[in-house]
Order: sequence, then C-alpha cells, then structure tokens
Amino acid sequence: MKISIERGTLLKAVGQAQSVVERRNTIPILANVLIEAEGGHVSFRATDLDIEVVDRAPAMVERPGATTVSAVMLHEIVRKLPDGALVSLADDAATGRLTVAAGRSTFSLATLPKEDFPVMATSEYASNFKAAAPLLRRLFDKAKFAISTEETRYYLNGVYLHVATGDSGPVLRCVATDGHRLARIDAALPDGAQGMPGVIVPRKTVNELRKLLDDDEAEIAVSVSETKVRFATPIITMTSKVIDGTFPDYSRVIPTGNTRRLEVDAAEFAKAVDRVATVSSERSRAVKLSLDDDRLILSVNAPDSGNAEEELAVAYADERLEIGFNAKYLLEIASQVDRENAVFLFNSSGDPTLMREGNDMSAVYVVMPMRV
Amino acid sequence: MKISIERGTLLKAVGQAQSVVERRNTIPILANVLIEAEGGHVSFRATDLDIEVVDRAPAMVERPGATTVSAVMLHEIVRKLPDGALVSLADDAATGRLTVAAGRSTFSLATLPKEDFPVMATSEYASNFKAAAPLLRRLFDKAKFAISTEETRYYLNGVYLHVATGDSGPVLRCVATDGHRLARIDAALPDGAQGMPGVIVPRKTVNELRKLLDDDEAEIAVSVSETKVRFATPIITMTSKVIDGTFPDYSRVIPTGNTRRLEVDAAEFAKAVDRVATVSSERSRAVKLSLDDDRLILSVNAPDSGNAEEELAVAYADERLEIGFNAKYLLEIASQVDRENAVFLFNSSGDPTLMREGNDMSAVYVVMPMRV
Repeated sequence: MKISIERGTLLKAVGQAQSVVERRNTIPILANVLIEAEGGHVSFRATDLDIEVVDRAPAMVERPGATTVSAVMLHEIVRKLPDGALVSLADDAATGRLTVAAGRSTFSLATLPKEDFPVMATSEYASNFKAAAPLLRRLFDKAKFAISTEETRYYLNGVYLHVATGDSGPVLRCVATDGHRLARIDAALPDGAQGMPGVIVPRKTVNELRKLLDDDEAEIAVSVSETKVRFATPIITMTSKVIDGTFPDYSRVIPTGNTRRLEVDAAEFAKAVDRVATVSSERSRAVKLSLDDDRLILSVNAPDSGNAEEELAVAYADERLEIGFNAKYLLEIASQVDRENAVFLFNSSGDPTLMREGNDMSAVYVVMPMRV
Repeated sequence: MKISIERGTLLKAVGQAQSVVERRNTIPILANVLIEAEGGHVSFRATDLDIEVVDRAPAMVERPGATTVSAVMLHEIVRKLPDGALVSLADDAATGRLTVAAGRSTFSLATLPKEDFPVMATSEYASNFKAAAPLLRRLFDKAKFAISTEETRYYLNGVYLHVATGDSGPVLRCVATDGHRLARIDAALPDGAQGMPGVIVPRKTVNELRKLLDDDEAEIAVSVSETKVRFATPIITMTSKVIDGTFPDYSRVIPTGNTRRLEVDAAEFAKAVDRVATVSSERSRAVKLSLDDDRLILSVNAPDSGNAEEELAVAYADERLEIGFNAKYLLEIASQVDRENAVFLFNSSGDPTLMREGNDMSAVYVVMPMRV
C-alpha cells in the first residue's frame, strides 16, 4: 500500500474511526485501525467488536493494499502535523512497518497483519430506509439522558428504537428509561420503515452515532435487523450490535389521567431548581415544589447545611399540591425543552409526573416523585 | 451582621477567597469563609492553615458583625444568582443561620462561630517592598514548571525567592528545580528589597498568587520574613507560610563552560519535539537531538510501537553532537520562550544543557540529558 492524502481529510477520517476504539484493550489488534487503499479511495476501519466504523476518504493511491496500525497513535501523529500538509502512508512488507511522512517528518509505525483484523460479518437487514439527520438527532438526543447505567438491567442500557402508533398514525419512536424517569420521542415514520423490528441501540452507539448526525443536510441510510443496526452516509458507515433483551412495556408507565397542569418557562425553572439545590449535599438532592394559585415555590431542606427557597410566577389553576423530585432529574428534563414552556401534568404527590413542551405530544417525559 | 452587596462584586470576592479552601477537610471550620462587615466594607477570609486570603469589597453595611459559612456553598449560590442582582447577607444569632437573599431566592445557611475561625497570627516582616504585577508574574510563571512534586524533597516543592547578584548587580530572583531541570529567573531589584531573607514559596501559594498578578497596572506590596511571605493589593491580602528548609546551592548546577551553541525557533522546535514524541509510550519519552552543520534531527525510537524522525533547519556551527532528553522537559522549557529564538548551550552528551531566550541572561534554564 502507498497513498498520499491531504492532512485535514486524513485527520477527519481517522478521527471518526478511532473514537470507537476502547482505550484499554486486552486484544492488541482492537487498538488498531485497518487501512485499506484501492481505486482512488482509502478506508479506515475500527471496531470494539460491538460497533464497527468505516470511514472513506479520497486519496491518491499509488499502490493498493491494506495494513493495520495503532489508531490512537496514527490519529495523534496526524493531529500534530501542520495544517495543509500532504501526508504519505506506505507499508513495507519486509519490515512490517508503516511509514507516515509529511514535510520533514517521518514516522515508522509497527503494524499487525490485516488478516487478523476482526471485520464484522455482513448481515441481512429486515428493514432499510432513509432518514434526515435532524430527525434522527432529535430522536436520540432527547431520549439519551434517561438511559440507565445499571448494568444488571442491561436491557435499559440503550435507546429503544421502534415503530409505534402515535396519536395520528404510525411513528418512528425512541424510548429510554432508568426506572426513575422516561423519555418517549416520536418522529414521522420514514418511507420504508414500516415493519422495522424494534431494537435497543446501546449507549455507546448512540454517542458515536451523534458524529454522523451533525450535518443538517445529510440523509442517513438506516438498516435494521433483529441483531444489528447500521447507519450510513456516503462517507461513514457505522454498524452496531443491538442489546439482546426485551425492552419493558413502557406504555403502562406513562400516566394518562394527570390533570393538574403547571406551565412554566423552562429556562427560568431550570435555573431556579439549580439554585435551590445548591444547599443540599450531593446524594439526596430532593427539591420540593409547592403549587398554589399561579405560584410555584421551590424549596430544599438540608438539615446539616441549610435550606433554600425560591418563588416563581407560573400558570397553575388547580388544587394546591406539594410534590418532591430529584433535582438532577428535574434539571435534565427541563433542559430538553427547546421552545415554548414546559408543561407538567401532576396527579398526586406519589404518582409519576408527565412533562412535555407546550402541547407537543411528540416528546413526552415522565419523572417519578420523591418523598420530601 | 446585615449587608447588601452587588452580585458581581460578591462573586469576585468570595471566588478569590474560596479557592484556597481545601475540598477535603477534617476540620469543619476550614471549609468555611469568615465574613466580617464593618464601616462600608465586607471582608471574606479563607485559610488552609498554610495560606490565608482576605478579600475586601465595598458593601452597604446595615449592621456590622461577623460569621462563618461554607465557602464553596456560598460561592456556588452567588455564582448561580442572576447577574446584576442585589444580594443581602444577614445572620441570625438565635437560629445560627446566615440568610442569603436576592430577588425571589432565599437561602438559609448553617454557620460556625466566628471565634473558632483560625485567623493567621500577624507577623513582623523583615522586608517590605513594592513590585509591579508583571514583574512578579514573570518571575513565578517562568519558574514554576520546574517545581518538584517529590514530597520527600520538600525543600524543592516551591519557588526559591531571594536576592542574588546578577551580571549587572543585585537582582530579585526566583529559582525552582526538581533535580532534572532548573529555572532561574531574574528581575530588577525593587527598592527596599535589599536584605530580604530568601524564602521558599510553596507551590500552592505560587498558584493562588497568580490571581493577584493578572492586572498589568497593579502594584503588589510584598512582605517577607523568615517564616512568612505576604502579597497584597488594596483589595486582596494573601499571607503564606514558607517552606521550612534550605534550598540547595543551585549555582553549581548551572553550567558556565558550555560552548556548543544551537539557535532554533522555539515554537517550531516545540512542535517537532511533540510530533516525534508521539510514537513513544508515556513512561520513557526520550528524544534524541542529532546536531551537525546547521541541521538538527530529532528522533525517537520506541522498539514496540515505532520510530520517528524530523529535521529542522537551525543555526549550529560546532562539532557534531548527539544528545538525548526527556521530551516533556524539552517541551516545557521551549514553551517558556516568549520572544526570540531558543538558544541551547551544550557541553557533551552527558552534561547538563543550558537554555535561554536569545542572549537574555535574565531567564536561564538547565536540563539534564538522558542516555539514548
């Protein structure tokens, strides 16, 4: 293999691929990136055995071929090369080294045989469709804060992507929950997504996927099978195993009969929650909401360190109510609100509370109360 | 005590004081800040028993008095209050609480008796002088990277501030070393500093002091005794114990007979060192410098991962030389160079190397070589 490639192009391609590599590896080849050059293109493939990312870039290919080198080291080297440099990559079968050269810098890196690289098996996908990047971004971004980190409940360690029936027909839906709070986000069902099997997309995949979704104009090709999910742009392909488990029936958790309605400026609410929570120790940051006649009093009582209280003018016309929440959960939910006010629907101080943005039913959040 | 104070003023004063407070404390009062209000001013005093910071701010004092509250919590609360808010602080002897109120927020914080707060004893200072902030900033900033972190050599865990004889008369000098490298920085001796006892200013004091030195126009009142050093502006007073030990005779370490002279663009040099060091593992990042006829080749050889080489055009007219250094030390020294080129003076590959900025003798660095 011998190629020349512009430093910026190389940096982007290697950067996206290497981020999937686990920093601590017991299998040496998993620290490496597989470089394959052929016909005017070079591809960089990296994997942690659960996720595989392939990044393609145009390059001048003088001699086609393939090899593997340390993903982190190659990325570090390219990052430190001067902007605009032309970088050449050439492997030498005799020495087993890859030479990286640019300007007056020459690096000779240890390689591992390309045959040892665990390329993910190709699959049959039950469903293939296209979705705009902003649509997928919204689905995953608004859901991921609620992903559980409890390893014993592994089936909650991801976002449940599936087809569901919304208020006005079928939708593409993402749900995440950790048992304390839940996010349910809907989007219009893309053509061809009907009949897609529901899959639990792991947390790491959700985070890595984010890089593919930054470009507002991008169309993402999505493929889903019972065991894998693939997201692809013309440049990057990310394939991930899905979590082998059954996502619980979340619909029973979403309250439908909550009638006490609070409407509040989400940003003001979040700032006030953050302020009153300051007096409490890290562990049990319970915030009490006292509601009465267009008035919300937020309060925290931490016997050791002190207490705090803040009043907000809100819209609330229902019966007097006192209810407590974990401050962190309230903050995270309030920060999902992009536009409009946050609308909370309460039942009693012991029941789950529902939150949404204005009257938009396409993003619904549930949070469990705490005794205060 | 009852005062009103603008939020920005309060934030700055509490912020500077609280940064000296250790996050992990076994003595509860050390987590607190002592607030004292009297005659149009409020002061915030914090200490870790080695350093004491007192920060004064103008305030409307309705009722003079004093109390102590958690420094971190007060700082967090004030930070989260809206910009421009008027904040009132009022203590209640009956409840033992301090009320912090602004707008519709009210906080009631636990206090500890002001009598329990360990105010640092006042001292007689042997020497008092004034120095411009930029002068002190340069002295400490350029020396501190060389401070030792080895706790057994406690007398190297700071910057040695003393009066010395420079090339053209007496100077105020800062020296730091960890045995591998050394920095010696000189400044014109301020009036009144003659006869100042030499003191070892601890690392934490050097770091905390930095906040007093940001203002180019500020004049700092410096007071030095055998056991303490004090830096003061009209607003902040920082008093610190000095390290009780003898700083070694550093003059013997600074080579005077080095004749092989390398002149190199410091920024280009640092970038090249950083690049070639990439191929080496964290532990033993040895960089080899090969010098010959206006040519410098930097190289790193890491048998496991690879090797790297980079050539730089430099000014070097002496005998051929190969010498190795720790890459981190070379980078740190090169990054001290503000203007001009870095000038290295070598003897042999086994002897300490001297570096300075151009022909400026007021900042001199020594670095020990490594076998490569």
